[in-house]
Amino acid sequence: MGQWLDQINCPEDLHDLSNAELEELAGEIREEIVATVSRNGGHLAPNLGVVELTLALHSVLDSPRDKIVWDVGHQSYVHKLLTGRRGQFGTIRTAGGISGFPKPEESPHDVIGTGHTSTSISSALGLALARDLKGEDYNVCAVIGDGALTAGMAWEGLNNAGHLGTNMLVVLNDNEMSIAPNVGALSSYLGRLRTDPAYGRIKADVEFILRKIPAIGGQVVKSVERLKDSLKYLLVTGVLFEELGFTYLGPIDGHDLPRLKGVLARAKKVKGPVLLHVVTTKGKGYPPAEAEPHRFHGVGPFDPISGKAKKKTGAPSYTEVFGRTLVRLAEGEPRIVGITAAMPAGTGLNMLAQRFPRRCFDVGIAEQHAVSLAAGMATAGLRPVVAIYSTFLQRAYDQIVHDICLPGLPVIFAIDRGGVVGEDGPTHHGVFDFAYLRHIPGMTLMAPKDEAELQQMLVTALEHSSGPVAFRYPRGAGEGVELSKNPIPLPVGKAEILRRGSAAAVLALGPMVGRALRAAEILAAAGIDVTVVNARFVKPLDEEVIIGLARDVKKIVTVEEHARQSGFGSAVLELLARKGIQDCRVEVMGFGDKFVQQGARDYLLEEDGLTADGIAEAVGMLLKGPQRLQNISKKGKRHV
Amino acid sequence: MGQWLDQINCPEDLHDLSNAELEELAGEIREEIVATVSRNGGHLAPNLGVVELTLALHSVLDSPRDKIVWDVGHQSYVHKLLTGRRGQFGTIRTAGGISGFPKPEESPHDVIGTGHTSTSISSALGLALARDLKGEDYNVCAVIGDGALTAGMAWEGLNNAGHLGTNMLVVLNDNEMSIAPNVGALSSYLGRLRTDPAYGRIKADVEFILRKIPAIGGQVVKSVERLKDSLKYLLVTGVLFEELGFTYLGPIDGHDLPRLKGVLARAKKVKGPVLLHVVTTKGKGYPPAEAEPHRFHGVGPFDPISGKAKKKTGAPSYTEVFGRTLVRLAEGEPRIVGITAAMPAGTGLNMLAQRFPRRCFDVGIAEQHAVSLAAGMATAGLRPVVAIYSTFLQRAYDQIVHDICLPGLPVIFAIDRGGVVGEDGPTHHGVFDFAYLRHIPGMTLMAPKDEAELQQMLVTALEHSSGPVAFRYPRGAGEGVELSKNPIPLPVGKAEILRRGSAAAVLALGPMVGRALRAAEILAAAGIDVTVVNARFVKPLDEEVIIGLARDVKKIVTVEEHARQSGFGSAVLELLARKGIQDCRVEVMGFGDKFVQQGARDYLLEEDGLTADGIAEAVGMLLKGPQRLQNISKKGKRHV
Repeated sequence: MGQWLDQINCPEDLHDLSNAELEELAGEIREEIVATVSRNGGHLAPNLGVVELTLALHSVLDSPRDKIVWDVGHQSYVHKLLTGRRGQFGTIRTAGGISGFPKPEESPHDVIGTGHTSTSISSALGLALARDLKGEDYNVCAVIGDGALTAGMAWEGLNNAGHLGTNMLVVLNDNEMSIAPNVGALSSYLGRLRTDPAYGRIKADVEFILRKIPAIGGQVVKSVERLKDSLKYLLVTGVLFEELGFTYLGPIDGHDLPRLKGVLARAKKVKGPVLLHVVTTKGKGYPPAEAEPHRFHGVGPFDPISGKAKKKTGAPSYTEVFGRTLVRLAEGEPRIVGITAAMPAGTGLNMLAQRFPRRCFDVGIAEQHAVSLAAGMATAGLRPVVAIYSTFLQRAYDQIVHDICLPGLPVIFAIDRGGVVGEDGPTHHGVFDFAYLRHIPGMTLMAPKDEAELQQMLVTALEHSSGPVAFRYPRGAGEGVELSKNPIPLPVGKAEILRRGSAAAVLALGPMVGRALRAAEILAAAGIDVTVVNARFVKPLDEEVIIGLARDVKKIVTVEEHARQSGFGSAVLELLARKGIQDCRVEVMGFGDKFVQQGARDYLLEEDGLTADGIAEAVGMLLKGPQRLQNISKKGKRHV
Repeated sequence: MGQWLDQINCPEDLHDLSNAELEELAGEIREEIVATVSRNGGHLAPNLGVVELTLALHSVLDSPRDKIVWDVGHQSYVHKLLTGRRGQFGTIRTAGGISGFPKPEESPHDVIGTGHTSTSISSALGLALARDLKGEDYNVCAVIGDGALTAGMAWEGLNNAGHLGTNMLVVLNDNEMSIAPNVGALSSYLGRLRTDPAYGRIKADVEFILRKIPAIGGQVVKSVERLKDSLKYLLVTGVLFEELGFTYLGPIDGHDLPRLKGVLARAKKVKGPVLLHVVTTKGKGYPPAEAEPHRFHGVGPFDPISGKAKKKTGAPSYTEVFGRTLVRLAEGEPRIVGITAAMPAGTGLNMLAQRFPRRCFDVGIAEQHAVSLAAGMATAGLRPVVAIYSTFLQRAYDQIVHDICLPGLPVIFAIDRGGVVGEDGPTHHGVFDFAYLRHIPGMTLMAPKDEAELQQMLVTALEHSSGPVAFRYPRGAGEGVELSKNPIPLPVGKAEILRRGSAAAVLALGPMVGRALRAAEILAAAGIDVTVVNARFVKPLDEEVIIGLARDVKKIVTVEEHARQSGFGSAVLELLARKGIQDCRVEVMGFGDKFVQQGARDYLLEEDGLTADGIAEAVGMLLKGPQRLQNISKKGKRHV
């Protein structure tokens, strides 16, 4: 496959292709994407939906002179294929390969790196204003999904762009869903624009009537004149965007390539900000994805013929265990409600939504709102469980501080995708959550060693009605341990000592606990007996256990799937300093001061020594004495 | 004063008052507020603007059964006077007194605590949904300013509330400004609703015409029927809100008490979410504030007759020095642009706006957008300086991580109000910024010891074109040191040794440096010679100096105007652990793990021992040996 695709090395190569040839190219691109994503996993449906749109943009715009900013960026595969990266396309989302998101280091065509939604209008406006100030002349285009418009940040951008009035194009890629089907009033509004034939006819009707009205004569005419202006203003479809200062074009069929090219060429000539409303079908051209766009939003490897997922084996995921346990608890506790920001399936809250539709709230991509909504609910006596991925919860940091922790409301944060997530890379890893939550007064912060302890942490959080509680757990399969029908709450601030030894103590958290136990076995085989503690709590720390070990064992290694700055290890250091304990060596293991790149999770953990071997080695180094040895081994780089 | 006010102990007492009496009461309330704020300082103009609105709300609603949520909350003084806090009103914003913001601990009428803008729709919706789920029946009302609508979070709330359709009232208090005059397309839209007489007439006109049209007869009728529905939908003023699912009422005069009461009573009966658009005058009834609403938004003590500020003496503020220095640098460097989120005067960027109007961008209350806008500008070669208060920058944490630090863009963050701000209290202190910025890879983070060093940090940041730089500085007057016309950049990551002594080392930052020097003098008088270091950099640390002191002096006290968790002191602990240095005692001074309350800045610093005496005492304790002494003195509580 690839008769046409073989000839495309840069967007300019599209200029010689006829529309018929471009349409053949579109077919080849779809084949290439399905073939590659079926092997590597990735965002399938979003990319299949923007094949024609991307071809039209690169036919009409002159990238990289003209700037295209892909909101969220998981729909940039077609763009990557057209901008000189076809050769590397097979490496997408693998360690060392090209990214599944725009990445400025990769190509001058990836002008802005993205990963989280709803930033594109802001950064595109920044480009446009810089262009104006520098007296340059090029087009700036943001491509944003309808789901991304539920995030307030997109409105901040629209509001500012409409006010400033500079030339820029916002392409609204409306596929009627973010990841899950969209929710919210705006979504209904877009739906009306799309589907209600009355909307399309209003303008024509009004013009027809206005032509007739002068026949009424006399007194009415003046009113009509006024009305004409107002109607002109109000009766354009897309009035919402027009109100904000944009010229609205559309809606147009996002798979009609000639029409797209025509409208884009027109949009380029309009002065001021333009919003072009394009309607696309997620998964277009690949029947399994068209039938189940949600399942094919982001997928692991699958069989390209049937669309069936390659068999997953092993334990249920943390997400599933969380979702199921929450439903069971909600059956006995009517005050429990769930809140998700457009990720009902990703967070496992879909199970609650199915069982108790009135008690589960999908608020759209709106993490800030999700958290303050929970504040209101908790104030009125409910027990909201806010389930948001670690990386996305970053957007609600301010609301967590002020709306939850300051009043000390008993809101529960179920933080999925804590730690590295693998192939999605630096914008999606959850390695800063301890850092952005630990310093907030009143927060209780936990991480379970396995899925059974996750169950326990959920009940612990529900029992703890005097303030907020957060627990974070990793992506993917659990450890395969037995689950409980009636999980027992944990004592708050108590660690679990799993093994005793006097040479050193390893304090680990979350999935690092299992690795610490294996490290202890490696060390035991070498005659070194270490204590292994499942710390469970990042806050409050188990001061008794930690201080006891610091006094008795005097050598501590902390291990967490988190940045080394401001995490659990730092909390231990702060505690020891506060208690005046100085003769205890502490080695903090975690990710170095860098953004963790993409790759398989185990690979990324190994890179920073977060393996049983790495932990054993760290203990070994600690036992050699207080002076740090230089260049001991390749793995020593984690200490840099 | 207070014939009527004396009789109001709770909102119910309003029910017996006639409109004429309520209007007299309004006058008394204004006198009381002007008298108190002229003594204590506070938010004057916003409160004078909502006197009638608050009276109407408490006349029509039944608080605390009905819930009133005050967005941002600095306009809640009238509410406080009417809800049993008149006796304590003189203590407002003082240590131990009542808060200048709603505070649930103070009164059941303060149902939700606020401080940052744009959260009220979300939390009010949370209350309303909890009411529905619990089968209860009361009214929920959010009062939000037009400025607050520029923040995306408010749109997230509107979108979700419009979708869910539950009963709630949003009162849009439209005073045509946030703190500075409003910017943005939405602001223009509200302006048109307010002022364009055509808008008010459209609805009437259309109805008149529709009545006439059937006379045209025949073919047109069907179109007209369709049109009627559509017009009904589209031709309501406030169409923007109606599109989002709200019933729009207004605009009405927010100082017309009888009318307000009437419309509020009507609004209570409407099913589903209602937006009531009320137009008020900021500063209403107090001529100096009406004339200069911006200056009287938040004020220090002033003369109530003339409105003139009580004379400030002393050095120019950090804000002024920053603003002036930036203008001078911008004169020589055309790539410099400034970005403020609705605080041009508060941040000193008004000076840049005056000198280079095209190079200063006020984006409204939209911190997330401000940061990603800067990302676009920096990508296109500009040098954006984002000036946002420490506490407000929290809202852009995610954007700083992903849009600035991940691509390593040279954006400069000028973080004003770092440390405690005094009377505004816990929602406004900037004591978490080191914590939420330090762990982000690639960030350079500084704090100046005085205003001359602030100048140097600004040029340092501009010289550092390889990545983002943030510096944070306190509210209020500088140290009074000489300023430079040509500030010299600092070497990145280098501390300044101010004094040498072998007993211990004090590593201080920002305004704590001066206190550390005074502590050294106190200690010297007692025969104890300590080293004092102006650390300057929280990241990267001056490893050479710190490790050298740890090895030689072996006793270190770190002092910062910041939470003790995850701040500069933690960074020092992490460094020493990483380097395997264990025989150095470190005492971390800063704020304990709690929200710092309101009060004068010096008082708050003293509370946590952040004084010359407190530092000297901490050094003294450290010298007594590694074991922590219990209950040494009252000031010892900082170690709890």
